[in-house]
Amino acid sequence: MIDGPATHSSLRDADVGSLRRTIRLGHYTRHTAGLADGRLQCNLAIVPEAEILDFLRFCLRNPQACPVVGVTDTGNPAFFTLGEDIDLRTDVPKYIVYRDGVAAEQVTDLLALWRDDLVAVALGCSFTFERALMAAGIPVRHIEADTTVPMFRTNRACVTAGPFVGEMVVTMRPIREADIARAIEISGRYPIAHGAPVHVGDPAGLGIADLSRPDYGEPVRIEPGEVPVFWACGVTPQNVLLNARLPFCITHAPGHMLITDVDETAAVPMWQANNPIDQQGD
Amino acid sequence: MIDGPATHSSLRDADVGSLRRTIRLGHYTRHTAGLADGRLQCNLAIVPEAEILDFLRFCLRNPQACPVVGVTDTGNPAFFTLGEDIDLRTDVPKYIVYRDGVAAEQVTDLLALWRDDLVAVALGCSFTFERALMAAGIPVRHIEADTTVPMFRTNRACVTAGPFVGEMVVTMRPIREADIARAIEISGRYPIAHGAPVHVGDPAGLGIADLSRPDYGEPVRIEPGEVPVFWACGVTPQNVLLNARLPFCITHAPGHMLITDVDETAAVPMWQANNPIDQQGD
Repeated sequence: MIDGPATHSSLRDADVGSLRRTIRLGHYTRHTAGLADGRLQCNLAIVPEAEILDFLRFCLRNPQACPVVGVTDTGNPAFFTLGEDIDLRTDVPKYIVYRDGVAAEQVTDLLALWRDDLVAVALGCSFTFERALMAAGIPVRHIEADTTVPMFRTNRACVTAGPFVGEMVVTMRPIREADIARAIEISGRYPIAHGAPVHVGDPAGLGIADLSRPDYGEPVRIEPGEVPVFWACGVTPQNVLLNARLPFCITHAPGHMLITDVDETAAVPMWQANNPIDQQGD
Repeated sequence: MIDGPATHSSLRDADVGSLRRTIRLGHYTRHTAGLADGRLQCNLAIVPEAEILDFLRFCLRNPQACPVVGVTDTGNPAFFTLGEDIDLRTDVPKYIVYRDGVAAEQVTDLLALWRDDLVAVALGCSFTFERALMAAGIPVRHIEADTTVPMFRTNRACVTAGPFVGEMVVTMRPIREADIARAIEISGRYPIAHGAPVHVGDPAGLGIADLSRPDYGEPVRIEPGEVPVFWACGVTPQNVLLNARLPFCITHAPGHMLITDVDETAAVPMWQANNPIDQQGD
């Protein structure tokens, strides 16, 4: 366990328990990319019970952008299906609080804001397939450059549910032409982490005018022989929550994810339910 | 379109539109295995809105048994995310109506029973991976024998949500030892159709005493050199709905599935959202 303020590099080898305690104590409030080696990290949306059914419908109707990996019990800040000791009020490095459709404030804990009617939904995140791409020798440019992945609003409408309406947000990674088929196959193995790309090639096909000007994150260099490849992005629900103008809701801050105890390669995103298949005598 | 009462064999080559109209008109009320070649068939649970959030939590916490492929809007009998013209009140060959925790009646339509507070959840079904196994040359015994797959209650507790509590129900298929690794790999490609097996080998490992006496369906022969392989089963939620003793809910009758317009191999179970990945110039 790390005592006092921690840096990203000091946490790189920390086990998930130490890492979460460090975040819980407020000693680390930055992004979580590259931390908690091999554990599933999640996008998070916290919505009052009055709106949660429509929000779940929205996620289930747009599973590439919003792959649901867990839902809490109403009012309970423990995400018990994703880990032994996850307290949603303290265990994310940074949160965004939305009031009446405006991102009103960023906070590092929810102790003063938690309510008995809140329900949290965890959604898979691209860290999972990025690690798989790199393990297969396919470089990921924004990780090499140590920048935030470029994200773009698109013209592709999500399927609506109640007040939840909006366009899909995508991430872009330049991939060498020769690697594209493998990148599609590898990311496609992780349907709970956005799965295969939604578009390969001309950004105009998604209504994106200029790859050098992302709507979120930072632009990346595209080398000769590389093609822009677009994946559905977990920022989509944040956009849609803004559009819905809920009186009150909360998300993680982009890149500042919920770190779970679940193995990121698990087919079933449940803590202690990820037993490999029982084989008699094995 | 088929006029008048239809048999399973007369419908074997029917397109999905004719098939659903035949069912809608009440001309076919039997099982749907082997029909609607290549379309996703689904288990169905119809639950009042008052209990739907906990029921969805239950499904999302037990995704092997209850892989959610769609949720309707409250009171709307059109399952518009799964097909162009699906009316839940008429388009399933046979339904079971539960009252106060008892399977009270079987009906062939819900025209007199539909209510404005009902929400339907569609769950993937084993037909999808069975077809993939057979396409790979792995025989499926109960299909060869033209019987209903044997199903067993297990001692494996599901993760609970609100009033929804119970043990996983599994299906059993005898698989030649040499085919087991491939059967695991192939079925694992379909997480929205129960995915990979939950257990291979000794039935006692799941608390099953006697494979010749299934709790539902019919027993099958196990040949020398074959091993019993167990997959999570879509009858699990029916069992759990019974345990919850809801005043009112509805499911399909086992084997009498909801036939959708979605391609059963689609990674994303959404009608008209199953575009293959856009590739510029292709």
